[in-house]
Amino acid sequence: MISKNQLKLLRALGQKKQRKAHGLFLVQGEKNVLELANSALTVKQVFATPEFLADYHTELSGFECIEASLDELTKASTLVSNNAAIAVVEIPTVETPKAQGLMIALDGVSDPGNLGTIIRVADWYGIKHIVASTDCADPYNPKTISATMGSFGRVTVSQLDLPSYLEQSNLPVYGAFLEGESVHKTEFAAEGILLMGSESHGIREQAAKFVTDKITIPAFGGAESLNVAMATGIIIDNLRRQHG
Amino acid sequence: MISKNQLKLLRALGQKKQRKAHGLFLVQGEKNVLELANSALTVKQVFATPEFLADYHTELSGFECIEASLDELTKASTLVSNNAAIAVVEIPTVETPKAQGLMIALDGVSDPGNLGTIIRVADWYGIKHIVASTDCADPYNPKTISATMGSFGRVTVSQLDLPSYLEQSNLPVYGAFLEGESVHKTEFAAEGILLMGSESHGIREQAAKFVTDKITIPAFGGAESLNVAMATGIIIDNLRRQHG
Repeated sequence: MISKNQLKLLRALGQKKQRKAHGLFLVQGEKNVLELANSALTVKQVFATPEFLADYHTELSGFECIEASLDELTKASTLVSNNAAIAVVEIPTVETPKAQGLMIALDGVSDPGNLGTIIRVADWYGIKHIVASTDCADPYNPKTISATMGSFGRVTVSQLDLPSYLEQSNLPVYGAFLEGESVHKTEFAAEGILLMGSESHGIREQAAKFVTDKITIPAFGGAESLNVAMATGIIIDNLRRQHG
Repeated sequence: MISKNQLKLLRALGQKKQRKAHGLFLVQGEKNVLELANSALTVKQVFATPEFLADYHTELSGFECIEASLDELTKASTLVSNNAAIAVVEIPTVETPKAQGLMIALDGVSDPGNLGTIIRVADWYGIKHIVASTDCADPYNPKTISATMGSFGRVTVSQLDLPSYLEQSNLPVYGAFLEGESVHKTEFAAEGILLMGSESHGIREQAAKFVTDKITIPAFGGAESLNVAMATGIIIDNLRRQHG
């Protein structure tokens, strides 16, 4: 059973301020909760249905597990769909990654679903680190975590002063613009930072001035733009084609 | 002002059954409503704020426009975000497209947001026709229309008996599987059908048997899968790189 105080905490962790105050975030849904068994994250508690706890006894053996009905879990969940499991997890200390290898930088990408989808596609292509301006979506927002489909444990997201990070890096910075060299023709370096802006504002001037190569996804039809997560995935595929 | 009866209709059109009964669907949000001016669709009415009607007087001149407050529009909207404009549009008669050029086929893609995103990326790459199994998301679902970001007017979606469509086509059918030839190495034909399945079930056997080429997006990291819309975009980019 989920106690009143536990329910209060679960609800509170839907809010960024409360996540920061408690140093905790929520991982919801079967796939995401099971992913915790393979991660280095510290799990405080797992609330789950008796069926889920029985089915994944081995995976969950290291965690404090609390049985709850699907009804209770649905009430406690900050997400729309039904949830067989909700975990309370400590927000880890993430060290600012060294600028090396292939990385993604995000400027003002404020939608948590987009951020989560970018984390997932980064993980698919083996990218370990994302650096993000401080006004990007919170990497620990439940919607972000949900959209990562388990990839949150394998990719770090560091919110930081993006322009100064780009300034201090010695890597080429590939900035995605509506005008630029076609990614079908760009010769990418083996290491570099892919910089993406938001759909509404693009890459802002403060970050844009550190772009070394303007790139674009060639358009063949009538759409004016692509979703930022989609564009990120397509460009990374073009990078990985050259440097797998 | 939105009358009681008009409000009732707007609300009703959130449901598939009602859309079918009335032969009407909703187009919501500024960008999508403005897109109607460039489309061949028959617009019954546009409900919009006085500001929107004044700003886009020229674009909207062919339509019956009804002034409404943002508050009224928000109440009438089936979407979460605020809406400066809502249009009621006739569902067009879409002829089954001839199997030619580059096309997308969807098997059991049931999420309207994914369908809308696929319509948008199809439009970006100049693909005009999508054929979809009857259990795919409704192309006229408000969430689908919203996710297309205006591309709904340039791409047709035909719901049909997908296996028999694939059987009768003389085009190569590129089926996306988790195992298959890497799209980085596939030599694509100039014309063909890209067949995508749902994230949970993949391409089902009935459609899979008409696949001529199994393809896959090469993975470099830990994610088990990609979102179906993301995967569609990445594969189309690989196709267009060879046949622009």
